Amino acid sequence: MKVVNYKDVLPVVMDNEMVKNVAGRLMIGKEDHAKNFCMRVFEIGKDGYTPKHTHEWEHEVFVHTGTGEVFIESEWYPLSKGSAVFVPANIEHQFRNISDEIFTFVCLIPSGAPEL
Amino acid sequence: MKVVNYKDVLPVVMDNEMVKNVAGRLMIGKEDHAKNFCMRVFEIGKDGYTPKHTHEWEHEVFVHTGTGEVFIESEWYPLSKGSAVFVPANIEHQFRNISDEIFTFVCLIPSGAPEL
Repeated sequence: MKVVNYKDVLPVVMDNEMVKNVAGRLMIGKEDHAKNFCMRVFEIGKDGYTPKHTHEWEHEVFVHTGTGEVFIESEWYPLSKGSAVFVPANIEHQFRNISDEIFTFVCLIPSGAPEL
Repeated sequence: MKVVNYKDVLPVVMDNEMVKNVAGRLMIGKEDHAKNFCMRVFEIGKDGYTPKHTHEWEHEVFVHTGTGEVFIESEWYPLSKGSAVFVPANIEHQFRNISDEIFTFVCLIPSGAPEL
């Protein structure tokens, strides 16, 4: 079992050509013997975004704080506290912050995909 | 794909000998072609609790609002906004609200388990 607040987990900071101003945390994964799916928390700062990319696994996302948008296939959709997003496998997608506040979301992936 | 706020999903209210003052919402599941795992959101009102039970599937939980506790095996652990919980399969567990505010959490289960 495991009980931990995301603020007590050391983040991995991501900032390069593809991804800007993003901090990711692995919350529940293989090391915890979670054999079916994996939980991460991402924080996106002002003007930040995740990569626009496609992969063979799906995402299930829940927005915890802030205001952002998700690009799915060819359209941007607004997201706020309490929004849930299902991004199917093999669909192009990207998340971005659209406010000055930190945009925080939980993102789950099936086991076997890269955890962070 | 799917983008929806939990407040826009009709809740199923649960109130009997086993569970008190709980509203559950299915956010992402089989109907959305989510084939690996399923997302639900639960709100527990004042003095409310989920059943103390055991089953063959795990939970991955993220606390969105409020203050509560989770019982795992033989102990209660405090939970607040941002807490993540991994409840392994076949471990006795229960969630309860310990404040006057609504205690809201996202709870994920593997596909094949009852969705709500």
